[in-house]
Amino acid sequence: MIRLHAHGDLKAAAPVAPTLDQSRYLTQVMRLKAGDDLLVFNGRDGEWRCTVAEVLKKGVILRAEEQVRPQTFGPDLELIVAVVKKARVETIVEKAAELGARRVRLVLTKRTNADRIRLDRLDAIAEEAAEQTGRMDVPVVDDPIKLDALLDGWETGRRLMFCDETGGAPAVSSLRDAGEGPWSILIGPEGGFSPEEGERLRSLPFTTAVSLGPRILRADTAAIAAMTLWQAAVGDWER
Amino acid sequence: MIRLHAHGDLKAAAPVAPTLDQSRYLTQVMRLKAGDDLLVFNGRDGEWRCTVAEVLKKGVILRAEEQVRPQTFGPDLELIVAVVKKARVETIVEKAAELGARRVRLVLTKRTNADRIRLDRLDAIAEEAAEQTGRMDVPVVDDPIKLDALLDGWETGRRLMFCDETGGAPAVSSLRDAGEGPWSILIGPEGGFSPEEGERLRSLPFTTAVSLGPRILRADTAAIAAMTLWQAAVGDWER
Repeated sequence: MIRLHAHGDLKAAAPVAPTLDQSRYLTQVMRLKAGDDLLVFNGRDGEWRCTVAEVLKKGVILRAEEQVRPQTFGPDLELIVAVVKKARVETIVEKAAELGARRVRLVLTKRTNADRIRLDRLDAIAEEAAEQTGRMDVPVVDDPIKLDALLDGWETGRRLMFCDETGGAPAVSSLRDAGEGPWSILIGPEGGFSPEEGERLRSLPFTTAVSLGPRILRADTAAIAAMTLWQAAVGDWER
Repeated sequence: MIRLHAHGDLKAAAPVAPTLDQSRYLTQVMRLKAGDDLLVFNGRDGEWRCTVAEVLKKGVILRAEEQVRPQTFGPDLELIVAVVKKARVETIVEKAAELGARRVRLVLTKRTNADRIRLDRLDAIAEEAAEQTGRMDVPVVDDPIKLDALLDGWETGRRLMFCDETGGAPAVSSLRDAGEGPWSILIGPEGGFSPEEGERLRSLPFTTAVSLGPRILRADTAAIAAMTLWQAAVGDWER
């Protein structure tokens, strides 16, 4: 069944107004008509079966019928990724939504070769991927920030999985040893971190430096592999 | 340093002739000149430092100088993937090369919605990804074959990691219990396996059915996640 992310409240018999783009998708691409069902979530009220109540020129109006799943969130996982080429950043945001990250933070590092970031486009990719993957929230994508500033303002109690191209311990056992709780995963730029950045990262008390194997991975592959290992080690994949 | 996959033999002082496309890449894109160094591998003789000996109109001639790494192969991992949309198959082949699969086998299932497969294009993607990832062989990509025929001719002693959308056990521990040796990973089509296919797969004595978490993954994400878990559990990532 079609799944849609909406912004308004979801409660029994309440009208739900998708955006104009979403309305066009529902009627012109998916060919929904008045009376048809779909699933809607808003990141707060769980997942609802909704019915197309009216098809108007300025958009469709849905009616919330019944909650089919209560609101849940995945584990507190954040992906921090150095800005790389636009196409790879877009892939990374899509995969972060599928692999259950709550938030994607873009960082600028010494060797970042920054493409222009269009945050509205990344938000749309995150929303569509969240709809398709079945999760009940949409990951937030943050404006780029410098790596040093990000580390200076680090949240107390949050751990950092640092994918270290120069070494690092086996990921699954290291993550399990470090334990559950809020985590971030850091993926560097294509040219790697500078020596000073690497030193600072390894010296931080909240960092777990792990290896992603003996081959060189592109940034998107590294991000997907790291999120997979994290989910398997301390996330919701093996519960 | 630039890495190139060549077909001819590599031995001290031997001339090496890249293809015309590779020659153009070396001289026109990478701007190499006579006397410049690059790394060359052929999947048999290890990795060699070569020098550009001559730049001719019909292509460059390299000279093998010294072996810098002996020939090695990753673990015996095969990725079997249902034919999905062309762009996703291309991504999957690229990622299989990065994540150390020796071979990619395309299969046709009941719910396969086959795009036309261009094997020459997939071979070129596998080759380029192998060059960039640092491995010393290029994964083979096979012509599509029906799933039933593939299972009928299954190689004795090879295990199958079946990514089961309807359940399956935690991957890392199940794979470790099943042990090392030759393995294949099977990724289904976007619509999943048919009930009969799922039953046959689960009933085979060489199958380990594993879960890839609670969210629905696209075929390319599932392939990358499965190869990552396999490498971490029984491959060469945690050795």
